[in-house]
This record gives sequence, C-alpha cells and structure tokens, in this order.
Amino acid sequence: MNLESTLLLTDLYELTMLQGYVHEGMNERAVFEFFVRRLPKSRNFLLAAGLEQVLAFLESARFEPEEVDWLAGQGFHPELLEWLRDFRFRGDVHAMPEGTVCFPEEPILRVTAPIPEAQIFESRIMNLLHFQTMIASKAARSVLAAPGKELVDFGLRRAHGAEAGLYAARAAFLAGFSATATVLAGRRFGIPLSGTMAHSFIQAHDSEEEAFLRFAEANPERAVFLVDTYDTEEAVRKLVALAPRLRERGIRPLAVRLDSGDLGSHARHVRRILDQAGLTDIAIFASGNLTEERLQELVWTEAPINGFGIGTSLDTSSDAPYLDCVYKLEEYAGKPRRKRSEGKATWPGCKQVFRQCDREGKIASDLVALEGEEHPGDPLLLPVMREGKRLAAPEPLRSSRERAARSLASLPEDLRGLVPGAVSAPYPVRFSTKLDALRRTLERALA
Amino acid sequence: MNLESTLLLTDLYELTMLQGYVHEGMNERAVFEFFVRRLPKSRNFLLAAGLEQVLAFLESARFEPEEVDWLAGQGFHPELLEWLRDFRFRGDVHAMPEGTVCFPEEPILRVTAPIPEAQIFESRIMNLLHFQTMIASKAARSVLAAPGKELVDFGLRRAHGAEAGLYAARAAFLAGFSATATVLAGRRFGIPLSGTMAHSFIQAHDSEEEAFLRFAEANPERAVFLVDTYDTEEAVRKLVALAPRLRERGIRPLAVRLDSGDLGSHARHVRRILDQAGLTDIAIFASGNLTEERLQELVWTEAPINGFGIGTSLDTSSDAPYLDCVYKLEEYAGKPRRKRSEGKATWPGCKQVFRQCDREGKIASDLVALEGEEHPGDPLLLPVMREGKRLAAPEPLRSSRERAARSLASLPEDLRGLVPGAVSAPYPVRFSTKLDALRRTLERALA
Repeated sequence: MNLESTLLLTDLYELTMLQGYVHEGMNERAVFEFFVRRLPKSRNFLLAAGLEQVLAFLESARFEPEEVDWLAGQGFHPELLEWLRDFRFRGDVHAMPEGTVCFPEEPILRVTAPIPEAQIFESRIMNLLHFQTMIASKAARSVLAAPGKELVDFGLRRAHGAEAGLYAARAAFLAGFSATATVLAGRRFGIPLSGTMAHSFIQAHDSEEEAFLRFAEANPERAVFLVDTYDTEEAVRKLVALAPRLRERGIRPLAVRLDSGDLGSHARHVRRILDQAGLTDIAIFASGNLTEERLQELVWTEAPINGFGIGTSLDTSSDAPYLDCVYKLEEYAGKPRRKRSEGKATWPGCKQVFRQCDREGKIASDLVALEGEEHPGDPLLLPVMREGKRLAAPEPLRSSRERAARSLASLPEDLRGLVPGAVSAPYPVRFSTKLDALRRTLERALA
Repeated sequence: MNLESTLLLTDLYELTMLQGYVHEGMNERAVFEFFVRRLPKSRNFLLAAGLEQVLAFLESARFEPEEVDWLAGQGFHPELLEWLRDFRFRGDVHAMPEGTVCFPEEPILRVTAPIPEAQIFESRIMNLLHFQTMIASKAARSVLAAPGKELVDFGLRRAHGAEAGLYAARAAFLAGFSATATVLAGRRFGIPLSGTMAHSFIQAHDSEEEAFLRFAEANPERAVFLVDTYDTEEAVRKLVALAPRLRERGIRPLAVRLDSGDLGSHARHVRRILDQAGLTDIAIFASGNLTEERLQELVWTEAPINGFGIGTSLDTSSDAPYLDCVYKLEEYAGKPRRKRSEGKATWPGCKQVFRQCDREGKIASDLVALEGEEHPGDPLLLPVMREGKRLAAPEPLRSSRERAARSLASLPEDLRGLVPGAVSAPYPVRFSTKLDALRRTLERALA
C-alpha cells in the first residue's frame, strides 16, 4: 500500500456518506469547490499550488482489492464494497493554474462529478492543495523580501513528515526559490540541489582546517564551508590560509556558510577578511532560524550575503501553519446548495472568478460570479480534467514557476509588503449581482 | 520508490559529508544524540513519540540500485556509490520508550555507529521523531484539559501532507486520544475509527430529516447526526421527531455533532431538547476549530458535551508548529565533541538521563550524566537496537499508550496546566558534575 496514492487516506465519514449515497442510489452531478475562507493575519495574498498532485491522484485513484476486503471487515455493506471495487474518477475539474495569486472566497479548484465520486476525494484534495498553497504563499514572502538573492529550502528535518518535506521543496521552488537541500525533491521534480556540510563533519575532525581540506578534496565541485562551529571569523582566516593548497588541487572555494550569531555583522567581517585576501569571488551564504522578516532586515541593512537557507519557518509556515480552507458542496442535481452554519455560511452555485488588471498590468480587482456569466477580465478557473482525463500533459514545474513569477510581478505595491498593517485596504474581491441574488433566494428558502 | 522508506529523503549535505568520510576512510564509532533545545512557550513538557517509525526505517533502509544510479548522474564518486550499494545500518540505538515525558537538553534517542552510518540518518530521524513528539506533546494538553471525555483526531485535511495526517493520528492516540477519523491510521495502527457525515450530505438532500433518515438507514451502527447545517436546535427537534421511525427500523441514534456557533450554549439547549424527549442516551459531540484551551473552558463551565473532534490545531500543533530539536555529534573515535556556535552550544559526550520521583510517584527531577556514571533514579534511555537489529519485537501501540497515560499521571500539578504562567518554576533538569567538568575541559581546549 502506497501512502501517497491509497484512497484509505481519507476520513471515515467520506465512506459512511458514500454508503448513504450508494444505498439511496444518489448519483446526480455535484459541484464541490475548494477555497480559503479568510487570510491568516500575516498574509496579503495566496499563491495556488498543489494542483498537479491532485490531478495525478484523481487520475490514478483506485481501491486495491485488499483494501476493499479490509473495509468489509469494518462493517461496510456489500453494495458499497462492490461500488468501491469498480471505482475510478470520471468527473471534471476546473482549477486556477499553479502559481496564480488568489484570495479568500475564490474557488481555487472545482470538482464536478456524480456526488459519491466528488465526495470521496474531499479529505485528500484538501490535504494536498492546502499544504502546497500554504507553503507557496509563505515562500513568496521570502522571494519578495530578498529579490535577487539565492533562496534555498533547508526544511526537511522539521517538516511535518515525509510528504511535507518533499512538497515544501516543490512549493518553495514554484514560488521562486532557487534550490532545495532535499535530495528526493531533486529527483522527483528536477529542482536544483544545494547543500554543504553539518557541524558534525567539522567536529569529527581534529581541526577545522583538516575538515575543510578533506571536504573540499572529496567534493571539489561543492566546496562550500560551514564556518561557525567554533569561531566564525577565525574559521574564515583558516580558509584563507588554506586557499593556496586548495587551488593547487584545482579546487575553487565557492562559498562560506554562516549559521549562528548576528548574521549581518558576521557577514561584514567575513566579507572584509575574504576581500582583503583577494577572495572576492567566494560568496557568503547564511542560515539559522531565518524568516522572511529577518531576510528583509538583512537586505535593507545591506548585509553582504548572497544567499539564504531557510528551513523550519518555511516548511512549517510557522507564523500561519494552516489556512482556513474548505471543500464545499455548491450544487447538487442542478440545484445550488448553501450551508449557513454560524460564521461559516458559503456562497452557493458553480462559480468562476474574473480578474481585472490596471494599465501597468497590476492586478486590480476580482469578481466572483456564477459560471456562465460574462464579465470583463480573465477567468481564473480553467478546465483541466474532463471525464477523469487530463486535458493536457502535466505542466512542467518550471512553467508553473514562471507563472508564479509573473503573478508576483503583477502584485500592486501594497500587497508586496511583509507587514499586514502596511496594506491600506484588502484586495477587492466582489461578488456578482446574480450570485448575490442567488444567495438571498436560498437564504429566504431556508428561513 | 516508496516515499516512506527511501534513503533519498535526506539532505544533500548528508551525502556530501558521506563522500568525505568514505574518501578519508573515516569509519570510527560516532555517537549522535537527538534532543530538543528548548520548550515552546506554551509547553511545560514533551511526550516522546515516533521511535517505532525510526527503528523500522533503520532496520529496512537500503539504497535501491536505481537510486544509486541516479546519484551517479549527480556527480557522486564511484567509491561513495559502491559504499551506498552495500549500505545497511549496523549500529546501536538507545532511546526513551514512546510515551515517556521528557524535557529540553535530554537525549531522547542516541545512535552509536560508524560515523557515515550514523550521519546519513540525521534528516529522516529528525523528521520522524520531531513530528510525532510534537503532536503527542500537543495532544497530551487536550487529554489533561478534558479528562474522561472522548477525544477524536479530525485533522487529516489540514495536516501537512499524507504522512503528517497518518502519524498525527498515531501520536494523538498514543497520548490518550480515543479515536481518529483517518481510515488509514485505523488500518495501519489499529486505532479505533470515528466519523459521521459532512454538511454536504445534508445539503445534497432536499430536507434535513430525509438526510438524517437515509444516513441512519445506510449506517445503522454509526447513527451520529450533524445538526448545525441550518439551525442547530431546529435540527435536533427534527431528529427527536424522527426517533420513533428510527427505532422501528431498529436504529439507535448514538449522538449529535455540533460544529459551529457557541458550542457550550448549543450543547445546553440540545441536551435539554433531547432529555425532554426522553432521549437521554444520545450523546453530544462537538467539533469546529477546537483547541485545548477551548476544551478546558467547556469542561470548566460544565457544558454537557461527551466528546470532542479536534482537527487543525492538533495535527499542525498550531500554537507551536515546530520544536527546536537537533541531532548532534557528541563523541567520535572515543573523544567527546562539542559545538559552541553562538547560542547553540551543546553538552558533549555520550549521555544518560536519570529521573527521580517523589513519594507520591510524581516526577521530581532529572539528571543528565555521562553514560557509565551511577546515580539514583531510573535511567530513561534504554537499549533498543544492537548492530542494526531490534532487541525486542515492535512495541504494540497500546502499550506505548499505557506508558503515556502513566507518564501523564506522574506529572506534578504545576506541569499539568495549559498556561505556562501557571508553572511556578521549570521542571529541574540538572547536569552531573562529571558532565560539567567535561564541558569545561573541552571549552578550554577549544579556546
């Protein structure tokens, strides 16, 4: 059983509901939409990500015979078990392409299928889209805060499990990071890999010089040196002294990595030591509990740092470790549906989002309308799957990454800042007259 | 390639360091320890978890031939590639058993092996132990806040990916939760499953009554009703009216679920409606953005709620979405090693933790000492693997859960509260005279 593709990675209630739908023969077309209800306090926008993994899952999802047998032992009825054995997804999907900037209340993905087929994917679709959208939105903040700097994902160790480590690397690259330390993400997604040495490598050797020399001999193409194990500036002086011997061996030192203390101050001292020794082409790379706020501070104070490794705060989205997202039934059997639970009411019907830009190409306002309405602007939800089949080959990650770069470039100035207080007003997301009329009609009908 | 078991789920620097060690023939015994540097603000203690997954990984870890081939294409040297082909873990592991209460600076797991073997597991050991320890520590807060209540993990959808959803269910159950909604966790770990229906099931039907009736007919053993889709009290009255028809069909309604609004107030109204109809055995279950603080408030105000579904805050440990944990080299080739990076210095040497309890069996103080020292109290680190082989069969999850229950029962009163301010003083973790002397000696040697 593969953790990534099993349909048993779902909530029990999806199966009990399915048992209800199958028992009743309820098989009409349902429309479910995935959207975020509100932004975390420290976000001005979101960056859609994770669609590729959702489509791959929908396309290949099957119940294995032994999974159905196991469910039989959990008391599910033969009629459900038969249905599960034959199951595959034959529905339609519309979605915002990965790398699209988006906002609360806007459907990011829409599934249209017979209700049991659309329902069963709820838990995993949310699990996949939520995580990558959250991480891409977090990573975009570092990208905006440190333009032109090399940004590397270092977060696997404190990511929440295997898949989180892998997909955080993907979402961060999509948002504009340059590389990741996670080897599997290099293999799966073709993301450039970056990595140097840990303190343990230095400590295991009897001297820092020896550790530097041995590491460079074994990794002549990846000669980056961690310099903060004992004394940062002292270590850099040792490296300077070692430089001629490295050159003799044909090794070009690429960079030093700072990982503790006052990074800005160390960077200035280290830059001076290297430059005075004529080693102007050795770059300075910094890591150690970095956040986008810290990056911005280092950039604003012109710390001579060429790149940053960002780990925990990125891979856990530590200031906003979840988005208030949902996957809601909006229409069944041709009738719009609405939930009105206190504080959690939804906009009914099958929807589209139209975006208008200003003359400079900056995004200016979004309109959420009913599917079929015509409005100025570009529709953001595009058809991506019909009757269970993709309408195009999987998009290369680099294309999604280019879209994300264009999206971020299209953000108006007041959405680009890190501090929410800096935003004069939230980005305008409006609702069409027809959609509002439909909401009112349903409201009255339920009263 | 299986995401859960591949050795490529690692940081690139593990491989570059390995290339160094193999190139140099550095193969002496190394001791690495995993520990947490400091507690998050809102934690008084940690609950160790995830050891079983670490041991399973160590035991089975191999490089697949095609993985080695891929690494060849990434520029790694033939001598490393040969080493990887033959690789398996042959080291020793000592660890605190799962469900042990623990504190910062205390090794939770210790790996002793030739340095390349011990090094290569750093990223994944941290990734596994960090997550489950974090979640078990978070879940324990709900267990302490709501004694005697049924607690169910609902968090898969907003957990950070597949493995986070799966292991959050495990860690929560270990800490004392009763059940999970995540089906795969029921299958993998034998955790009881719990689940009802979503709002979509109600919305898809033309009336709430019909939805209740059809759901119960299809799931007669799981007749739990979600009552907040339109109007909570109204829905409960409908259920009361429906009760005779359900009884005719031999269906016993088990519970109603509240999911929005003021849960305490709704629970009181709903309890009264049910009781007045003689339905005193229908339980009330509540969910909806719950946290342990909210649970405590509902418990203190005696809201008539029998159980809680806790999702996002649990599975993301939202108030503390990471622990400041590390896996550090403490000894190599018989010599203690120490890092002294600013603000990140470590205690050197191969260590043990001794715990003393008071007369009532409450934990009273811990002493971190060098392995081999003798001190009063119970040693917390036990041998679990020797030369790559487990010393005992995998511990059943229920045994770990019982240990966790005993551990939580042994907490002194001032560590049981949710609010850190309520703790008079941090739990005393001391360091032995010999350990401190060793630290000073190394400090002088490095100066």
